[in-house]
Amino acid sequence: MKDLKNLGFCLGLFLTSISTLAADKSVFTPAQTKTAQSLIQRALESNLGYEIVESLTTEVGPRLAGSKAEKRARDWGVKLGNELGFDRVTVESFTMPFWDRGELQISIESPYQQDLYGTALGGAAPSEDTITAPIHYFRDINELRNIDEGELDGKIAFVDGEILVKSQTGGGYSQANIKRRVGWQLAEKAGAKALVIRSVGSDSRRFPHTGMMSKKEGDLWAKIPVIAVSNPDADHIRRLHNLEKQITISLQSGSQWKGERESGNVILDLVGSEMPDEIVLIGGHLDSWDLGTGAVDDGAGVAITTAAAKLIADLPKRPKRTIRVVMFGAEEVGLLGAFAYAKQHEANLTNHVLATESDFGAGTVWQLVSNTNPEANKAIDEIAQVVAPLGIVRGGSEEPGGGPDIIPMAAKGVPTIRLKQNGMDYFDLHHTPDDTLDKIDRDELAQNVAAFAASIYLAADADVEFRKLESDN
Amino acid sequence: MKDLKNLGFCLGLFLTSISTLAADKSVFTPAQTKTAQSLIQRALESNLGYEIVESLTTEVGPRLAGSKAEKRARDWGVKLGNELGFDRVTVESFTMPFWDRGELQISIESPYQQDLYGTALGGAAPSEDTITAPIHYFRDINELRNIDEGELDGKIAFVDGEILVKSQTGGGYSQANIKRRVGWQLAEKAGAKALVIRSVGSDSRRFPHTGMMSKKEGDLWAKIPVIAVSNPDADHIRRLHNLEKQITISLQSGSQWKGERESGNVILDLVGSEMPDEIVLIGGHLDSWDLGTGAVDDGAGVAITTAAAKLIADLPKRPKRTIRVVMFGAEEVGLLGAFAYAKQHEANLTNHVLATESDFGAGTVWQLVSNTNPEANKAIDEIAQVVAPLGIVRGGSEEPGGGPDIIPMAAKGVPTIRLKQNGMDYFDLHHTPDDTLDKIDRDELAQNVAAFAASIYLAADADVEFRKLESDN
Repeated sequence: MKDLKNLGFCLGLFLTSISTLAADKSVFTPAQTKTAQSLIQRALESNLGYEIVESLTTEVGPRLAGSKAEKRARDWGVKLGNELGFDRVTVESFTMPFWDRGELQISIESPYQQDLYGTALGGAAPSEDTITAPIHYFRDINELRNIDEGELDGKIAFVDGEILVKSQTGGGYSQANIKRRVGWQLAEKAGAKALVIRSVGSDSRRFPHTGMMSKKEGDLWAKIPVIAVSNPDADHIRRLHNLEKQITISLQSGSQWKGERESGNVILDLVGSEMPDEIVLIGGHLDSWDLGTGAVDDGAGVAITTAAAKLIADLPKRPKRTIRVVMFGAEEVGLLGAFAYAKQHEANLTNHVLATESDFGAGTVWQLVSNTNPEANKAIDEIAQVVAPLGIVRGGSEEPGGGPDIIPMAAKGVPTIRLKQNGMDYFDLHHTPDDTLDKIDRDELAQNVAAFAASIYLAADADVEFRKLESDN
Repeated sequence: MKDLKNLGFCLGLFLTSISTLAADKSVFTPAQTKTAQSLIQRALESNLGYEIVESLTTEVGPRLAGSKAEKRARDWGVKLGNELGFDRVTVESFTMPFWDRGELQISIESPYQQDLYGTALGGAAPSEDTITAPIHYFRDINELRNIDEGELDGKIAFVDGEILVKSQTGGGYSQANIKRRVGWQLAEKAGAKALVIRSVGSDSRRFPHTGMMSKKEGDLWAKIPVIAVSNPDADHIRRLHNLEKQITISLQSGSQWKGERESGNVILDLVGSEMPDEIVLIGGHLDSWDLGTGAVDDGAGVAITTAAAKLIADLPKRPKRTIRVVMFGAEEVGLLGAFAYAKQHEANLTNHVLATESDFGAGTVWQLVSNTNPEANKAIDEIAQVVAPLGIVRGGSEEPGGGPDIIPMAAKGVPTIRLKQNGMDYFDLHHTPDDTLDKIDRDELAQNVAAFAASIYLAADADVEFRKLESDN
């Protein structure tokens, strides 16, 4: 990434030639393009993004949804928004059920006593006392699907699986994650006293990855403890299983739901100069899991989008549309801030002309995808050309998404883009104690800020209808 | 390492040409050289070394010196020695003071509350109650040396330092380790209520490295808790210090000495066919720190040397001298097994003609160094030529060492060699929970077994006096 700063110097020539050649057909004026170029240059020279994530992880640290620390993070966000000179800084609060990890002891009792490194999954119940029971080994989640009711009575279910393969896209995570999300439903139904899974990560560190379980709306949460163990610990259980030994596990877990707490979204606005009611929404989520300090997940996203907006705020004039940074609360525990936002703004979601979130770490952005009115594709293509010197290629123009917290509003028709980060190391770190500031590369983070600043500025200053017609939805 | 197995096929030609060219001057006969070559070939094709470390880490796991688990490890070693057909299997027990880690809670209370990932250092005292105190920040151990008596009254000393630089040799560890070994003496003398140090490791994982503190013989152990925090946590404290904030730490530690326990050395002998009283000693240490499963430190060493000896045992005839594998007890807590061995065998240490230990993980062996009678250098040079196709170069012939557990006997004149492993990743893992089987590469381990088997066979079958004359010592 050392050459990135030099890239800026080449942008002038490159972009001027593009805009000259295609001047009559361009969506963006040479002046707009030049401004976007200047934002890239300044972002690459700036340390602001890094300073923001450094501040959040140092001064707040872990900030579990609904905790006092998450409240401190909101206060930090408000203070930051005011200090950086945003036009409007607001907090939209909501209440939510609070889940607390508690303490966990987990060990293999037989055939050979050995402690395991495990952690509870979000939503899991406590053990009343210590549970000691033989395990039923499942090679993968599909094997657990084929088990009959009552067949796990008196047992602990253990679901193995393969270590997630590292990739730029993080592909495979959703699939691997099924055991984390719904494994408990299958195990509980079959009578298991607890479920233990191989944690969903691409590393061979002794840190298990936590994460939220899923349930259908209206259903009850798990009545059993659900624990993820680290990959080396799951390897160990697999070895014992392959030795054809009966394995007994003992565990005591204090994880539990603890009633309603407050969470909230922090909203920083740069009010548009010509169409203040039209909103280009960017953001990240402010909450983090409690094990690490939430640097890559998702202090980085908060920092990238806030720094990008601040660079735009420093321009002589506000873009035509409003740029809104949302620091979403309670993402990790079920996109609660995102649903709260979509509900609270239901009436004016049609004014949200484009939305995107950064929530995949701080690796280099390598692709721009979109899902907008097809008529807007030319504008997106031109944005892609502007950020191309950063190493970013144009991806699909019908790729839904935009980031986890964008899902609820996208479901209601808000168009999206996404600047996709290189996630090669993301699943080594996410949801573990290892998610700390030292894992973020300053230059890669600056490349992110550059990509977001240029893209969002152009989208906000464009006379382009990104929204799909009713019939397109 | 994939090409290693093919290397074996090239050995015949290579070694035959060496031995033919220099036949009249060679220490080793063509038959001896050919046997060593066959040992390399068989070691590269064998999985025995891996199976041994897999068995130890799976069936015993963590085995803290003096613990019941270390006793289980001795039982495992005896069973293994008998199963592999060693001629003599003995255990030499000794008693030792037992230190137990206990539980630790450590957090920053101000300026911003945040839990830290820490672990007690071996020999540290418990906190009576929770200690909450401001820290005095020391950039490095040298700054702590310049502090006056009483100047740390009521404070917790924090000693920072730089992250250990990764290297093949592990150079820098001894220097970095001074704060772990003697920091407590300086902090306690200056009146500190506790000492917290940046742990000594080359990684940026959230696992602190434990390890033993030092004291002069006859002196008392620490009266204060001594804690190592992980590199990311130490980074965090440094950031707060750089913000010029007063930092308060709170800690509660249960680590303590718990009286005398039993440990022991397990000794497996292949009795020599012509000079049974002359001993070539190899080995590793059987105990491990309690956080990981002691795979690279030092299950690997036990496995490499035992597997190498077993391959030699499978030859049609025993080498002339006795080959002794020692699985040393209680290495981590002060080379207690090594001192016990040197004392117990004091009378016949002059019969120990050569000694070496494998205790630096399971990375590829890249160098052979020695410290013997200079007259024996030609033999060592020829051994180096035999293992050269494994990628091993000849290092110094006056390099003392041979491995930690060899120190006490080397001090009494036992000659040594050392097959030096590539330690690039060693200090990412050692003394942490991450020291697990998955960190060992089967092919690299097999290369180790090949290097040890060939070298030790030749040393044991040689008519060479490795011992220095009295006047050389």
